[in-house]
Amino acid sequence: MRNMTEAELTEIVLQGYSKTSDPRLREIFASLIAHLHAFVREVKLTEPEWLQGINFLTNAGRISVGDRQEVILLSDLFGVSALVNMISANVPEGATETTVIGPFFVEGAPEMQRGEKLNKATSGEPLVIRGTVLDMDGSPVAGARVDLWQDDAEGFYDIQKDGHGHDLRGWYRTDANGEFLATTIKPTSYPVPQDGPGGELVRASGRHPFRPAHAHAMIAADGYQTLITHMFDEDDQYIDSDVVFAVKGSLTLKFERNDSAEDAKACGLTAPFLEWKPIFRIVRVDDSSRDELKWERASAPEHAS
Amino acid sequence: MRNMTEAELTEIVLQGYSKTSDPRLREIFASLIAHLHAFVREVKLTEPEWLQGINFLTNAGRISVGDRQEVILLSDLFGVSALVNMISANVPEGATETTVIGPFFVEGAPEMQRGEKLNKATSGEPLVIRGTVLDMDGSPVAGARVDLWQDDAEGFYDIQKDGHGHDLRGWYRTDANGEFLATTIKPTSYPVPQDGPGGELVRASGRHPFRPAHAHAMIAADGYQTLITHMFDEDDQYIDSDVVFAVKGSLTLKFERNDSAEDAKACGLTAPFLEWKPIFRIVRVDDSSRDELKWERASAPEHAS
Repeated sequence: MRNMTEAELTEIVLQGYSKTSDPRLREIFASLIAHLHAFVREVKLTEPEWLQGINFLTNAGRISVGDRQEVILLSDLFGVSALVNMISANVPEGATETTVIGPFFVEGAPEMQRGEKLNKATSGEPLVIRGTVLDMDGSPVAGARVDLWQDDAEGFYDIQKDGHGHDLRGWYRTDANGEFLATTIKPTSYPVPQDGPGGELVRASGRHPFRPAHAHAMIAADGYQTLITHMFDEDDQYIDSDVVFAVKGSLTLKFERNDSAEDAKACGLTAPFLEWKPIFRIVRVDDSSRDELKWERASAPEHAS
Repeated sequence: MRNMTEAELTEIVLQGYSKTSDPRLREIFASLIAHLHAFVREVKLTEPEWLQGINFLTNAGRISVGDRQEVILLSDLFGVSALVNMISANVPEGATETTVIGPFFVEGAPEMQRGEKLNKATSGEPLVIRGTVLDMDGSPVAGARVDLWQDDAEGFYDIQKDGHGHDLRGWYRTDANGEFLATTIKPTSYPVPQDGPGGELVRASGRHPFRPAHAHAMIAADGYQTLITHMFDEDDQYIDSDVVFAVKGSLTLKFERNDSAEDAKACGLTAPFLEWKPIFRIVRVDDSSRDELKWERASAPEHAS
């Protein structure tokens, strides 16, 4: 390998990884190396540019301490997360579509009782989510776990704030009718975090940094494929220009105004308030070959010595 | 963008970045996005695989604290660093070839006097490096700064050891004849760090983890392009299978045995000892359009809150 051309170098690197014992990993390495090298050759990446890229990626990992996940944000911003999600989305016609998990999911969110307020430390315009989880036959799925997480009225998730506890995140159990009732506040459109490599990327690209208002949902039930999705405000000004390319037309909802004092009282609110009535149609494991995303956070020490 | 096909998604992401104001960055984004998306589509990356990749990259950044630089190691292991170096290497015929900087360079290494021992805290088989720095006309380059860094007899760099000071790294100044004299120990072949994502990658690939024995050199002089290169032991068993693909045939040297008691004494050694006599031919800035690599470490806080 001592006196190589560029093409020979790529060939030698490919050969080096061709003995990878796991066949799927071998396939991934081959494609990754080919595309990484093609990218470098295509743009004739200079060494200063390479070092800038190295530092950019290093900073994304370094800043990802605690619950922050900047590398997912970069993947989201380059549309890679949306593409992976789209490729994986082999759910049958009529099932609720999935979308990206995003960088703000955390493990260990608390259980909520029926109608319990998801907003523990924040206030905003009241929103009641009357959701239903059905299977593909239209039968209710009882006992499903419905994780919800969303931003506050200022556009921040709990983990973006100092000294936060769990706020605007938690999970509800569906009843015998497949229904759950969540009381929360209206989510708002928000800019992705601006103080790290993700913000740097958005600024460099001249794009706006906003995501349209949405709440995240993850729905898990025994025997069913876990659904990771969003509920989007269909009237949001950014609905057609989501900075992370994650909007799907089937996932938008209209805020409905409810003026009933009785309904408000039943939810511990005063009228009027907003409502969303999403229906989630989930798929039996047997009916899908989808490889499920099981959340597992990076395990390297955050403060290595 | 609400109901897209995979190809439409890629097109929309490309459009999103097409307004990047810096033309070079715009070119880089376009190529990077096209290849990232092509890779994802080609292997049909699943969401669990995507998350594994996210965690792998996050860990590489997280573990890069202090002087450790795991992201460069990953770039090295995928042959990307060698390729970037090769593409950038537009030095004229006859000039010393460059190679990768690697993950072990650090700023602020101490100045050494002529003949001063580079090994401060370690011992090994004595090696004298009698180097000469010439310009392309064959004239000596006086006053050049020659940074050297290398591993110890056990294969470790100073920054891989707890509580290290600068050891086996420092810089010499060339004299009026363009010469410098360094006393050190024989570098040895070594495995790249095994305790992070880089080690994980090597193990998964079934490749051996070794680099052939070498010392790094960086040569800087006013009016000349900075040269970043290696001196390799041409008899090393890994010379044709460097795990980071960085060997160039013109950069290998033979250890010569010197039995002269007088020569040994002049270097504060006892005979016999080993010698390397490298000649570095460097290029005037005017004679090259190479974009120089100026070391600048990632600047994000290592322990963000």
